[in-house]
Amino acid sequence: MQIGMMGLGRMGYNMALRLMAGGHEVVAYDVNRDSVAALEAQGAVPASSVDDLVAKLKPPRAIWLMLPAAVTEGAVRDLSTRLSPDDIIIDGGNSNYRKAVDLAGELSTASIHFVDVGTSGGVWGKERGYCLMIGGDEAAVARLDPIFATLSPGGDPALSTAERGYFHCGPPGAGHFVKMIHNGIEYGMMAAFAEGLNVLKSANAGSVARKADAETSPLDEPQYYRYDFDVAGITEVWRHASVISSWLLDLTAAALAADPNLANYQGHVSDSGEGRWTLKAAIDTSVPVPVLSSALFGRFTSRGNDEFANKVLSAMRQAFGGHIERKPQEESH
Amino acid sequence: MQIGMMGLGRMGYNMALRLMAGGHEVVAYDVNRDSVAALEAQGAVPASSVDDLVAKLKPPRAIWLMLPAAVTEGAVRDLSTRLSPDDIIIDGGNSNYRKAVDLAGELSTASIHFVDVGTSGGVWGKERGYCLMIGGDEAAVARLDPIFATLSPGGDPALSTAERGYFHCGPPGAGHFVKMIHNGIEYGMMAAFAEGLNVLKSANAGSVARKADAETSPLDEPQYYRYDFDVAGITEVWRHASVISSWLLDLTAAALAADPNLANYQGHVSDSGEGRWTLKAAIDTSVPVPVLSSALFGRFTSRGNDEFANKVLSAMRQAFGGHIERKPQEESH
Amino acid sequence: MQIGMMGLGRMGYNMALRLMAGGHEVVAYDVNRDSVAALEAQGAVPASSVDDLVAKLKPPRAIWLMLPAAVTEGAVRDLSTRLSPDDIIIDGGNSNYRKAVDLAGELSTASIHFVDVGTSGGVWGKERGYCLMIGGDEAAVARLDPIFATLSPGGDPALSTAERGYFHCGPPGAGHFVKMIHNGIEYGMMAAFAEGLNVLKSANAGSVARKADAETSPLDEPQYYRYDFDVAGITEVWRHASVISSWLLDLTAAALAADPNLANYQGHVSDSGEGRWTLKAAIDTSVPVPVLSSALFGRFTSRGNDEFANKVLSAMRQAFGGHIERKPQEESH
Amino acid sequence: MQIGMMGLGRMGYNMALRLMAGGHEVVAYDVNRDSVAALEAQGAVPASSVDDLVAKLKPPRAIWLMLPAAVTEGAVRDLSTRLSPDDIIIDGGNSNYRKAVDLAGELSTASIHFVDVGTSGGVWGKERGYCLMIGGDEAAVARLDPIFATLSPGGDPALSTAERGYFHCGPPGAGHFVKMIHNGIEYGMMAAFAEGLNVLKSANAGSVARKADAETSPLDEPQYYRYDFDVAGITEVWRHASVISSWLLDLTAAALAADPNLANYQGHVSDSGEGRWTLKAAIDTSVPVPVLSSALFGRFTSRGNDEFANKVLSAMRQAFGGHIERKPQEESH
Repeated sequence: MQIGMMGLGRMGYNMALRLMAGGHEVVAYDVNRDSVAALEAQGAVPASSVDDLVAKLKPPRAIWLMLPAAVTEGAVRDLSTRLSPDDIIIDGGNSNYRKAVDLAGELSTASIHFVDVGTSGGVWGKERGYCLMIGGDEAAVARLDPIFATLSPGGDPALSTAERGYFHCGPPGAGHFVKMIHNGIEYGMMAAFAEGLNVLKSANAGSVARKADAETSPLDEPQYYRYDFDVAGITEVWRHASVISSWLLDLTAAALAADPNLANYQGHVSDSGEGRWTLKAAIDTSVPVPVLSSALFGRFTSRGNDEFANKVLSAMRQAFGGHIERKPQEESH
Repeated sequence: MQIGMMGLGRMGYNMALRLMAGGHEVVAYDVNRDSVAALEAQGAVPASSVDDLVAKLKPPRAIWLMLPAAVTEGAVRDLSTRLSPDDIIIDGGNSNYRKAVDLAGELSTASIHFVDVGTSGGVWGKERGYCLMIGGDEAAVARLDPIFATLSPGGDPALSTAERGYFHCGPPGAGHFVKMIHNGIEYGMMAAFAEGLNVLKSANAGSVARKADAETSPLDEPQYYRYDFDVAGITEVWRHASVISSWLLDLTAAALAADPNLANYQGHVSDSGEGRWTLKAAIDTSVPVPVLSSALFGRFTSRGNDEFANKVLSAMRQAFGGHIERKPQEESH
Repeated sequence: MQIGMMGLGRMGYNMALRLMAGGHEVVAYDVNRDSVAALEAQGAVPASSVDDLVAKLKPPRAIWLMLPAAVTEGAVRDLSTRLSPDDIIIDGGNSNYRKAVDLAGELSTASIHFVDVGTSGGVWGKERGYCLMIGGDEAAVARLDPIFATLSPGGDPALSTAERGYFHCGPPGAGHFVKMIHNGIEYGMMAAFAEGLNVLKSANAGSVARKADAETSPLDEPQYYRYDFDVAGITEVWRHASVISSWLLDLTAAALAADPNLANYQGHVSDSGEGRWTLKAAIDTSVPVPVLSSALFGRFTSRGNDEFANKVLSAMRQAFGGHIERKPQEESH
Repeated sequence: MQIGMMGLGRMGYNMALRLMAGGHEVVAYDVNRDSVAALEAQGAVPASSVDDLVAKLKPPRAIWLMLPAAVTEGAVRDLSTRLSPDDIIIDGGNSNYRKAVDLAGELSTASIHFVDVGTSGGVWGKERGYCLMIGGDEAAVARLDPIFATLSPGGDPALSTAERGYFHCGPPGAGHFVKMIHNGIEYGMMAAFAEGLNVLKSANAGSVARKADAETSPLDEPQYYRYDFDVAGITEVWRHASVISSWLLDLTAAALAADPNLANYQGHVSDSGEGRWTLKAAIDTSVPVPVLSSALFGRFTSRGNDEFANKVLSAMRQAFGGHIERKPQEESH
């Protein structure tokens, strides 16, 4: 079927390619004209403006937005003023599901459908297909079935859509809600691996001298910490029939095989919002999420945001115990 | 090759079957004679006592122990007194790696080898193979290669052993250390899924009345919490090309497909030790593990071990604020 | 000076008494007529309705609201329609500071001042005075100085107001923001005591038999856990010159002296909102708060809200390892 | 009474002064002869060696050790060989309580008493007195009562010893166990303050521009984060009748009054062992301590020990999503 694609960044561009490979007609728009031209060379119909995009689509239209979360809401509202009843706007980005609830309500007064699609798969999705978590009204979601079937990994049509990689999770917002939880879980899984590997990396602590003074806790039994582990080999073996085998482990093993010290990374870890929203949803509904929150806070800390808190601790220690702060190079780990 | 198997519980019995299917001769012993008889019926050489087990093995012997952590240490010491120089004792159970360090040192004075093997794969290992994390001296580990090759999932012999599912991680204790970290990570991953699914289950909180009084925080925006999610469908769709696809997710989706409410479970979650040891190793080596510790503490709490702490909180709240403790049935979630 | 008091619950009633004892004239209103009558008997001017309350106050008026968070916003809006320019509405309850920002903006269009006051001190405040954290515009806050000076613990007028127990923290919302953080810290401190005391209570674990099987981690060194601690005596001694001496410790020691087992409590711990809002503010501003969040989630868990998560864990354990869930009475702690 | 003091560091020196001021005779020894000379100038009897210390004390002797945890055990064993039956060795340092259990058992075979005393109060103890948590056998503890009464803050002799600041907590190890828990709680309280103050410091995030791109979560409602808080004033007001009033708050307010930005500190926070031991005790006894562990891990992280974990996260993010790691100076907080 025909579909408009707005936003040709890393994700949108690849999704358009997969859709065209699946036989769909893609009308493409991006503020970056080079991206539009590049996709035109791959077979897309180019649009030079939002109005041009709308004009080149036959009603009832379906336009898929793949934009940064911060600009999506405005783009939806702007686009909706140019559309006709029964058109569909799809937000496939990492938006807060609350905006889907609000926007669907607003757009319904103009009989425009709003469908929110959580999209997982990253840069691998073009080849492997995308896992799609879908929210919206039945009619609109049903109309888009050919699109979802192409974007997802696919499989025997006799299987359920969930088994083929796409699932209608509920009314507007449900898709982004489920994607939000997906990412919350993702943060937790990533942190579990990261923490475990960090302990492995430190398992040679017994071969390193630690000072013995009132400021430093001695390592009592160094004989138990004299391992120099090959973390690349270990993550590789875990991939084979262990309980923690997973796609994240596959990627981690590959990264460690390339460089066991990951020296190209600084360890300043961004977060794009879903982890935060997951926490807020948990707070609102009184659900304890100590693991998911620890994973998120670890990212905040990786960017140095615990600095003032730590200064407060040092000031307290000096105040009650006369402890002079140790310099990092004096630290024994 | 010939191998002795001591301990024919859930794990040991299945491993013996896989070894025999791979052409090895298994001499089997267990305090439970029925288990020995059952395995004899499958082709094993039965042993009626530890001495009989030792007698039926040709030197240099290799004896694999698959026993509960609490009795393994004693069994190793007892067995070692009956063995000859160059024999190998293998501990494949969930023992603390520190015991492997100690035992290997002790046994080396009698020229007996001690090999510790962390074994992952659970009840599925008989068919899928076991992921093996191995610690011990080079010579002993090399001699056992045919055993490891059969127990592991296997693959093209041109591949590294890690790619075929077994890996010599380092000197004595290294195998159990790596298995310990594996399980620590496993706890974290499991908790990440469990917490995320709990939020999904609670996403209908806006459809449930919450009291408005000084004791209870109101749910300000109920319109965002009116989802009745199909958790079985959602976990199924996540299995297909999402970032969190994993074996644990496969198992979870199957369990939720069977019963989305998991009504057969009470939610009292045991732990068998590795999570605790992971934390202690992290503490000794000054490595922060907030996610892994949260996962472990969640299990302690699932068994009611936070009770006195919570009573202290209630007592404090009554003392400073006159707050009378709300009864559970009055709770609004 | 003259002040209206609306909401004569536990807090409002006592604050009115303290104000009258300080020489102020209190015009009192509550939906509960008995409370109004009781306060009238103590010297207050009774009001039979909101209109009556407004009528009995001389402009420019000052009306202090002490209401549950869930009804405060509506009450402020309703009240504001009955007031005149330059009147002041004070919200002394546990409201979300965001509402203060919004309400102050709305009311300013009618030249009505909105002052938000975070109030700490609980049921002890009538005698000890209340710690007051104040937000609002300079002029309104200055006009209320006699009220604040009476409600707070007080002291030498030569001291700063902070040293006498009240502080103008900033523009509208600043008072409730600071109170929110105060309560977030309070949750963390309370949990620190509760957890530590729980470990003390469990220090006799070595005198209790623990099972040795594959499901249970053995207690390796029981000789280190044979203490039957007198928690009442311990909390009492900590009150005297220890680093953790604090008002919360004073209250805890008193509660434990009355009953070291706190048998009158169930351990279902409510939360009234500020802990949640603190977390959300931390999330919005990317500040890691692992301790404050752990404290909040512990309260959620105390009310059983981890149940579905724990069932997921049990289902996973059965799926990969064949672990049959242990019943609580079989648990060894 | 007469007492030997071994170890004249920050704590031991001050305790000796307090003891002498209370009328006791102190025989003093330290490897640092200058410290001995300084204390001699204050009235102490100097000892030039351990043997000299023993020789100058009249049997039955009492010798108080105030040494770094790492050297205490050896010093006790060495000293014990020079003592006579019925002598008492007191360890007042921050030793692991397990060592007290072991040492008391060993020394009892020579009829030497071992008393472990947890000591809180820091550099302020000389004036305020020390909070003493005591473990050991009844007879030895009773004999030392005059010493404890002088070191502690004191009070009406009609009060219990707990009310005067010292308490016999139980058999050997009980004193250090209780001090360990005290410090575990202390870590949690400190972190609660530090985290809360960090949120206050960041409450101006809405006045700072945050980027809008796919890597960065936008701050949706900047109007709620425009506060420039006076943290010194806020901590000061909290000291007066708030629920979180405490000695740690007193010290924090003083530090912030001196410099609200704490610019003299780097925020690398040491830990001296008790926090770690508290966690291990909690793990052994299956007690959940999410707050205390979060506080400890925050200190590990303050020293950069999360580095490899964060690199793993960055490597994963690049692998699945093509996310290029943002440099710190590009971070929007």
